[in-house]
Amino acid sequence: MASDSERNERMEKIVSLCKRRGFIFQSAEMYGGLNGCWDYGPLGAEIKRNLKNYWWQKNVIERDDIVGLDGSILTHQKVLKASGHIGGFSDPMVDCRTCKARFRADQVCEQKCPEKPSKSPEENACDLTQPREFNLMFSTHVGASSDEGSVAYLRPETAQSIFVQFKNVLETTRQKLPFGIAQIGKAFRNEINPRNFTFRSREFEQMEIEFFCRAEDGLRLTDEWLERRIGFYEEIGIPRDKLHILDVPDGERAHYSSKTYDIEYDFPFGIQELEGVAYRTDYDLRKHGEASGKPIEYFDEQSKEKFVPHVVEPSAGCDRTILALICEAYDEESLTNDKGKEETRIVMRFDPKIAPVKCGVFPLLKNKPELVAKAKEVKALLAPLMNVFYDESAAVGRRYRRQDEIGTPFCATIDFDTIGENGPELADTVTVRERDSMAQERVKIEQLPAYIGGKLV
Amino acid sequence: MASDSERNERMEKIVSLCKRRGFIFQSAEMYGGLNGCWDYGPLGAEIKRNLKNYWWQKNVIERDDIVGLDGSILTHQKVLKASGHIGGFSDPMVDCRTCKARFRADQVCEQKCPEKPSKSPEENACDLTQPREFNLMFSTHVGASSDEGSVAYLRPETAQSIFVQFKNVLETTRQKLPFGIAQIGKAFRNEINPRNFTFRSREFEQMEIEFFCRAEDGLRLTDEWLERRIGFYEEIGIPRDKLHILDVPDGERAHYSSKTYDIEYDFPFGIQELEGVAYRTDYDLRKHGEASGKPIEYFDEQSKEKFVPHVVEPSAGCDRTILALICEAYDEESLTNDKGKEETRIVMRFDPKIAPVKCGVFPLLKNKPELVAKAKEVKALLAPLMNVFYDESAAVGRRYRRQDEIGTPFCATIDFDTIGENGPELADTVTVRERDSMAQERVKIEQLPAYIGGKLV
Repeated sequence: MASDSERNERMEKIVSLCKRRGFIFQSAEMYGGLNGCWDYGPLGAEIKRNLKNYWWQKNVIERDDIVGLDGSILTHQKVLKASGHIGGFSDPMVDCRTCKARFRADQVCEQKCPEKPSKSPEENACDLTQPREFNLMFSTHVGASSDEGSVAYLRPETAQSIFVQFKNVLETTRQKLPFGIAQIGKAFRNEINPRNFTFRSREFEQMEIEFFCRAEDGLRLTDEWLERRIGFYEEIGIPRDKLHILDVPDGERAHYSSKTYDIEYDFPFGIQELEGVAYRTDYDLRKHGEASGKPIEYFDEQSKEKFVPHVVEPSAGCDRTILALICEAYDEESLTNDKGKEETRIVMRFDPKIAPVKCGVFPLLKNKPELVAKAKEVKALLAPLMNVFYDESAAVGRRYRRQDEIGTPFCATIDFDTIGENGPELADTVTVRERDSMAQERVKIEQLPAYIGGKLV
Repeated sequence: MASDSERNERMEKIVSLCKRRGFIFQSAEMYGGLNGCWDYGPLGAEIKRNLKNYWWQKNVIERDDIVGLDGSILTHQKVLKASGHIGGFSDPMVDCRTCKARFRADQVCEQKCPEKPSKSPEENACDLTQPREFNLMFSTHVGASSDEGSVAYLRPETAQSIFVQFKNVLETTRQKLPFGIAQIGKAFRNEINPRNFTFRSREFEQMEIEFFCRAEDGLRLTDEWLERRIGFYEEIGIPRDKLHILDVPDGERAHYSSKTYDIEYDFPFGIQELEGVAYRTDYDLRKHGEASGKPIEYFDEQSKEKFVPHVVEPSAGCDRTILALICEAYDEESLTNDKGKEETRIVMRFDPKIAPVKCGVFPLLKNKPELVAKAKEVKALLAPLMNVFYDESAAVGRRYRRQDEIGTPFCATIDFDTIGENGPELADTVTVRERDSMAQERVKIEQLPAYIGGKLV
């Protein structure tokens, strides 16, 4: 078990790599940053795309019983009133009368007083106010006027548009229970203390499924989804022993839930939630039916009964999953180089599905036109199929290291053998080097798409 | 040329189909709707994914000289102050002193007075105020306090995060001019009069490239990007003769632009902009350099010069493009059916790349277990490769019509030949029916992935 300081150091290295190589930047960094908001750089944007596409592929495209939705972020106040978010989606806050800082009342011991950062407000004997509720939603005004009627909110979860469109989706897709509606998109919470890099941020992306069912199937399906979702994390490269399941106890679950499992990951900063699998019962559909005066019901053709469906919700944090993937991938390896010297190789051991770049393509030398031309041919062959990075600068060993550091699983080097200088047998073959084992193999150019493509799924 | 009433009728049919089949729903419809916001239903969400993925594939994955970014929606006020959006991003508005309605001052003749909807405010002799500027950005407060310092905005364009991250991207990617940064994401404008279905909405998605270059290349690259972008629309199924190019005259361009082309499409409600290709000069990078006190410069290794790059921006509206694709695809065809009766076939002639469902899979009869089992095998074979819709209810002809109406390019029917009842020669073959020609072909099951897959690119 790593010590706290080792874990902190590891996390600092990860944050630094993310910035240095273009995974994640602070939003508006050049203006001092917008606290709790992050921009994915070129590599981070590719990881995000890979993760979202894989999630959608497995949960929507390959399943008959789940369909997609892509709802608006701006949300009608009536939706969030009915769902309970306007009344109840808040954190208890306390203010310090001396230093004016604001703290989450339930996290006072974990927080630091800005006046004396070595101490918590409690240790510092801060003069704290009574807790007040602070709503976590961002509000704005829609339309030309700025009165109460024009208030709308940035959605605090993607789930609500699924509930309010349930009837439209049911009618247009002719689905039968149990079935799900899936959505990927941004959600927003005005967290008082954004922290742990992208982990707790104010703007984040969710990947949510609302899986509708009969009441009697709710608990069983919650357990099934828990297992399926754990399998998903394993498929993208998070080993089972780094995942923890928290059976959220009574009194700590959200107001709508009668059973919730949190799937947690062992981050360097602690064991924290990646996804909640919540049995939301019929709470949301019932509330929206009541508030709108139009009951949201399902008609069972066999039993001829009408009822409000129950729902199981596997709700994954996209940014948190990316952070877990980055933390899990980060590795430092001691190697002895060509000159017999010890050196450290930093390697991001991403699953090839997730890796932002799939293949580096290198001409051995940049001043040899035949090598460069051939390398560009190889690049053009692979580019329609996968994200390729062409690099001709510096020694090949250094180019490998650069790709290791961003987790590129394969590199293809075009050398004199490739251009036929050592006989026809090796002509039109390249050296393919695998990231983790650093093993090299000779592969025919025409077989490259299948060779690499087959290892990406 | 279709008359106005024919065009209106066509648009009404399209809007109705979009709701009926689950392409697009009004946001919060069950609560009366949130004006200017839309939710993409199961089919709309797939079209959107197809369009965004194709755009990213062509502009980022297949190009060496463009990298991606995925920035936050919440935007620091300093960013938008520097860019000119806080001061200048507004529409002139007038109010009617009688009916209290608010109109865009520059569109008074086109708008209708709510008191007398047959007349414009001008025709109605409304008592209008002097124009006032109305800022189009949505604002909110970030953090625990609600003072001026905590104001942030929902980005009015994705472009700004590209400009403020320019230096980080340049440093992490080692790109050389000319090169681009691409982004797909939501943007928000508090339009006073959202209208024309999803065309002018308050929440929308952009697909933007900021292509940085030397000053002397700006105008040439603007022309090149215009051509390339027109080619893109042709590739996704919008014919060249439905596209119009507007060379935006002096005085009508945005404040940052010295040359802008609008690429317009001939919508049923008029010729309207899909994309702007704007030469933004060095305006944005220069402004952010000035405002932050940190000049944003590029160092040319050959000339040893430092300068602020110029930028060409092809900025496409994702929702507008989807609406154009839907309008373009919609077709009604008169047919004589099996019984010699005239009927109308509604068919969405989407390009196969864009179509939300790629293949319908039908067992001829649902009460014949061998047919159903075989059809499910076919579905399982295709599902990892494309979006498939399995349908076993009603006559096959009716199932074809349902797929025509959502634009599915292929349907595979599993019949008695497939299960070997008419000899080994036809066993394991299916009938593949093509949407537009309605031609049918017999294809071996094992060849289906290649047969259909090859027609989707």
